[in-house]
Amino acid sequence: MVITLRPEATPEQIHGVEARLRDLGFQVVRAPSPGPIVLAAVGEGTLPALAEMRAMPGVAEARSIPEPFKLASRSFRNETSVLKIGDVSIGGPEVILMAGPCTIESEEQMVRTAAAVRQAGARVLRGGAFKPRTSPYSFQGLGEEGLKLIRRVADANGLLVISEIMDKSQLGLMERYVDILQVGARNMQNFSLLRELGKTQKAVMVKRGLSATVDEWLMSAEYVISGGNDRVIVCERGIRAYETYTRNTLDLNAVAVAKSLSHLPVIVDPSHAVGVREKVVPLARAAVAVGADGLLIEVHYDPERAICDGQQSLYPEQLMGLAKQLRQIADAVGRTF
Amino acid sequence: MVITLRPEATPEQIHGVEARLRDLGFQVVRAPSPGPIVLAAVGEGTLPALAEMRAMPGVAEARSIPEPFKLASRSFRNETSVLKIGDVSIGGPEVILMAGPCTIESEEQMVRTAAAVRQAGARVLRGGAFKPRTSPYSFQGLGEEGLKLIRRVADANGLLVISEIMDKSQLGLMERYVDILQVGARNMQNFSLLRELGKTQKAVMVKRGLSATVDEWLMSAEYVISGGNDRVIVCERGIRAYETYTRNTLDLNAVAVAKSLSHLPVIVDPSHAVGVREKVVPLARAAVAVGADGLLIEVHYDPERAICDGQQSLYPEQLMGLAKQLRQIADAVGRTF
Amino acid sequence: MVITLRPEATPEQIHGVEARLRDLGFQVVRAPSPGPIVLAAVGEGTLPALAEMRAMPGVAEARSIPEPFKLASRSFRNETSVLKIGDVSIGGPEVILMAGPCTIESEEQMVRTAAAVRQAGARVLRGGAFKPRTSPYSFQGLGEEGLKLIRRVADANGLLVISEIMDKSQLGLMERYVDILQVGARNMQNFSLLRELGKTQKAVMVKRGLSATVDEWLMSAEYVISGGNDRVIVCERGIRAYETYTRNTLDLNAVAVAKSLSHLPVIVDPSHAVGVREKVVPLARAAVAVGADGLLIEVHYDPERAICDGQQSLYPEQLMGLAKQLRQIADAVGRTF
Amino acid sequence: MVITLRPEATPEQIHGVEARLRDLGFQVVRAPSPGPIVLAAVGEGTLPALAEMRAMPGVAEARSIPEPFKLASRSFRNETSVLKIGDVSIGGPEVILMAGPCTIESEEQMVRTAAAVRQAGARVLRGGAFKPRTSPYSFQGLGEEGLKLIRRVADANGLLVISEIMDKSQLGLMERYVDILQVGARNMQNFSLLRELGKTQKAVMVKRGLSATVDEWLMSAEYVISGGNDRVIVCERGIRAYETYTRNTLDLNAVAVAKSLSHLPVIVDPSHAVGVREKVVPLARAAVAVGADGLLIEVHYDPERAICDGQQSLYPEQLMGLAKQLRQIADAVGRTF
Repeated sequence: MVITLRPEATPEQIHGVEARLRDLGFQVVRAPSPGPIVLAAVGEGTLPALAEMRAMPGVAEARSIPEPFKLASRSFRNETSVLKIGDVSIGGPEVILMAGPCTIESEEQMVRTAAAVRQAGARVLRGGAFKPRTSPYSFQGLGEEGLKLIRRVADANGLLVISEIMDKSQLGLMERYVDILQVGARNMQNFSLLRELGKTQKAVMVKRGLSATVDEWLMSAEYVISGGNDRVIVCERGIRAYETYTRNTLDLNAVAVAKSLSHLPVIVDPSHAVGVREKVVPLARAAVAVGADGLLIEVHYDPERAICDGQQSLYPEQLMGLAKQLRQIADAVGRTF
Repeated sequence: MVITLRPEATPEQIHGVEARLRDLGFQVVRAPSPGPIVLAAVGEGTLPALAEMRAMPGVAEARSIPEPFKLASRSFRNETSVLKIGDVSIGGPEVILMAGPCTIESEEQMVRTAAAVRQAGARVLRGGAFKPRTSPYSFQGLGEEGLKLIRRVADANGLLVISEIMDKSQLGLMERYVDILQVGARNMQNFSLLRELGKTQKAVMVKRGLSATVDEWLMSAEYVISGGNDRVIVCERGIRAYETYTRNTLDLNAVAVAKSLSHLPVIVDPSHAVGVREKVVPLARAAVAVGADGLLIEVHYDPERAICDGQQSLYPEQLMGLAKQLRQIADAVGRTF
Repeated sequence: MVITLRPEATPEQIHGVEARLRDLGFQVVRAPSPGPIVLAAVGEGTLPALAEMRAMPGVAEARSIPEPFKLASRSFRNETSVLKIGDVSIGGPEVILMAGPCTIESEEQMVRTAAAVRQAGARVLRGGAFKPRTSPYSFQGLGEEGLKLIRRVADANGLLVISEIMDKSQLGLMERYVDILQVGARNMQNFSLLRELGKTQKAVMVKRGLSATVDEWLMSAEYVISGGNDRVIVCERGIRAYETYTRNTLDLNAVAVAKSLSHLPVIVDPSHAVGVREKVVPLARAAVAVGADGLLIEVHYDPERAICDGQQSLYPEQLMGLAKQLRQIADAVGRTF
Repeated sequence: MVITLRPEATPEQIHGVEARLRDLGFQVVRAPSPGPIVLAAVGEGTLPALAEMRAMPGVAEARSIPEPFKLASRSFRNETSVLKIGDVSIGGPEVILMAGPCTIESEEQMVRTAAAVRQAGARVLRGGAFKPRTSPYSFQGLGEEGLKLIRRVADANGLLVISEIMDKSQLGLMERYVDILQVGARNMQNFSLLRELGKTQKAVMVKRGLSATVDEWLMSAEYVISGGNDRVIVCERGIRAYETYTRNTLDLNAVAVAKSLSHLPVIVDPSHAVGVREKVVPLARAAVAVGADGLLIEVHYDPERAICDGQQSLYPEQLMGLAKQLRQIADAVGRTF
């Protein structure tokens, strides 16, 4: 249930509404939006009649939230959330490009790739320091050394940093170096991790699990928000289907659905979805056309020598060509790039 | 195997190459392209060494076709096929809009919808006269009466007609009224029907089955082409996945794959894929951005009163708004609309 | 809606009930069961109040059928249908084994395989004369010559014949040689074919499409039944999933669901589902344990030399070993084999 | 690569082989089997020629392991692993029944359910103390209080305890009360957790993720084994498909595949897969028929009052009926129950 208070509501009236909802067993969350105060009653309480709440002093409107993801829903907050980090606004008019290598390998790799990424108009540098690998025998990442490197290179290029957190024990470390904490697809329902991320104020990007429904995906975002951190982005990265020409199947259908149900910014990662370089460019274009708030793309200054996922990393010049096309498509959908 | 002959090859030399391939058990097909003669050896023969064929008099080049869909592959024909019907070219620079109601219902419906469709820039009018319905108890279409109606209305508006053929026994009838014969998703592997369509010279559009791989989809096109009719288009219309917010899941990933593997024009039908009106517009934009050669969209002048699929039919004004966005996106990808 | 009449209902009363339902727009079907007369109102009529129908003279009970597959549902007919062909009863206590080669190849192949099949306790000989092949270039079957052969060999061994019909134009021919007409997975929603099969009195086995829901599968059976032929069996043969170790994924989950929703006998085909010999035996056992009414299994007296699907065909001795295990499992679930 | 040493190999020879493999970059693991010493070279080393290794003194045989899951594969160890905990042997002739409620609720619930479970022949009591819930607002489990309760009740009934661990921080606590640590489907690729479980000597059961391939599933087991703990079981619990009659789709196809590829015991959980009580019994029977080494089944003495998953919990008398059928099916496949 969402309760909108009157502009002139007194602190006593506000407190009265909150107390009534708590008595009914709910947790009460205040929407971060400017303007009139908006309260959401979440959790497993007993729903009061809307009429009862509407009749309370100070209440302008009360309505129910049909979605299970209460705080992530447009029923709670109609306009797309804009998440500001430094001078970057995710969810605003600008389509945000996040780009970089799959994994942080070396100073040369990061310096040369970051320069290409910045030149193409990216605002965020990506790169993994801790890698979730299907095989225990594969390269697992540079760890803190990698985080220091990506931070330094990003700063030198005026870029933000996004990197994946694999476990809640890494949180303190990651917070020191990273602007956006990425939750990988395999950890989308690692609820211990999601709860912990509710306690930080860092931005969190929750990638969709390989076969997660839109509801489940947004419920994972809800875990973070209900824990106290509403700086949440979600990211589509391909679902598991039966086609073998691509690694996974990029699901832009779900992006259209998520954008209509939720106010959270939605990013699209075509690189992991398809796993083959030549398909990344057309699908990145399609993602912006469908309404995504940003893209996460793998780029490497020398993909042939990448430690992982080289076959899906764009060459810097491909990224430049893509950026040119994106500008026109963003304009067609009323956005900038 | 594809054999390209020298411009100066004599009829005897050409005949010699064909005879050798037939001796090896193959069927020999001549590519319809202008320029040098290109022969494809298809079927279950014994592949000769490339060197042997290259050494034959009159042969410029010989190479193998790794794909199972020989005649539909870019290995056989590198440039996208352009299918001309009247003044419409499918597969050329223009992105082709095919639009109209799910099913042909009445004169008023067709006249009013066709006017809206033409105004939005469509070149082809769609409408079903024979409807494949999951339930034997549902409305099955107007039959020939419907075909006469759509033909008359299309002619009055300078549009082509596309309509679904459900059975090979309908072929003679359909050929009299229809420009493009549509094979529905449920009939994608109705091989008896596909073989029969190989004998006509009408254009054929093969919709992808609900869970067909790209290979299987293109193999169904190959059935028609190998039967003697190379006027074939393929159409993506959503795959069966687990999401319940939309009817099916539009698979633009497969469109990117099909475009890279095959020279056939690829059309996208977002209406049947998603089944809900508000998602059709963003996904139609994405389809053009990914590189589709055209769109198949359901429109109805009064969707609330449509006999079937009203909830996924666009209002005429939505189609107009979409057309405006498509113009800009087509331009971004080097196309016109 | 299902109307059960009183044992003492007069012909006038019965006619009165039928007339009322027809007036409301329904088609009226009489259940084939012995005992009291049961009528089903199917199609797109306006449902009367249950109370109205219950109050009609001669009516013992009226209740609604919630399932879309009216005549195939247990709401219409609670006990499993038993389909008698000669001395074989499908759907009764005996678990029916149908076995034989994928495709009819030669006299020697059929004679030797049929002997093995009979020895293992099979009651039906399978073998394709018309083969639906993904590639137009693959072997398409022996046609009528094959049908004559399988009929002769089956008769010599006291077996029934099941074979696939691919097109309604083959019906007259098939009826002369075959006891059970099989509709392949790719034709599950070939509604023209299903309608035609409603007009014959031959038994029909409808295989489940590669990604059909249980509802869609049973609706395809409903097409045949509503057309006038209630001698229908359904067959699970694997769904398309993402695993690549097997060709498809045998879905015994759906068998449990179909058995609870429908009175039609359910057969399981593990051979096509998995496509690898060594997995056929354990999954055949599981099919009987879950409650299947029969099995369809590929066997070849010399699988290495089979024209198609040799890698999934059992050796005769494997079928003998399986039969022994099936006897005990059938007993555990109150059946015989 | 797997190296089998000669019975008479000297410690120096064994050391020599190990040293050579380590020089090549491998990690060397000794198989726990009795009999001749078997070494596996795992990780990212440079494979030596088999001939080189076969020529080393003390080596009886060397062969490669084609599977990515080296230590979990039958190439490494051909016979099914038997995991002994107290007097229970998982993977041996006895089919092991693990049963109990979804979540630990109260003393009465555990005492009454455990009695029923033991009577039906179960050897392990299941019950969740920490619950992974899709919604942050749902009941999250009793925690340590629940663990104490299940331990006490299990001991009173001579049963082992299995319970889910959600996070590596719970390991110390769980180890005090639980015999088998369950990794839930959502955590199948929580690699931080899997690595930690490699350091304990407790038995670990890895549930298959909702859309994990068999390879990925066994790779998750490999994480635990390669970390030093070879007491690993895997559990199939349903995949995500498109059918809506059941919660997920139990995949016995994958059980047949996993049993052929891996020596690890395979358990089947039909309760979570289907989510509806009446389908659990037939699918449990099928699981034993296909060759599962055990079952994990939800039972509640009063399902209507269960906090979670009541609709899928068997009544005690259903479990008794199932047990009777399982005895006969186990016998048919050469097992006991």
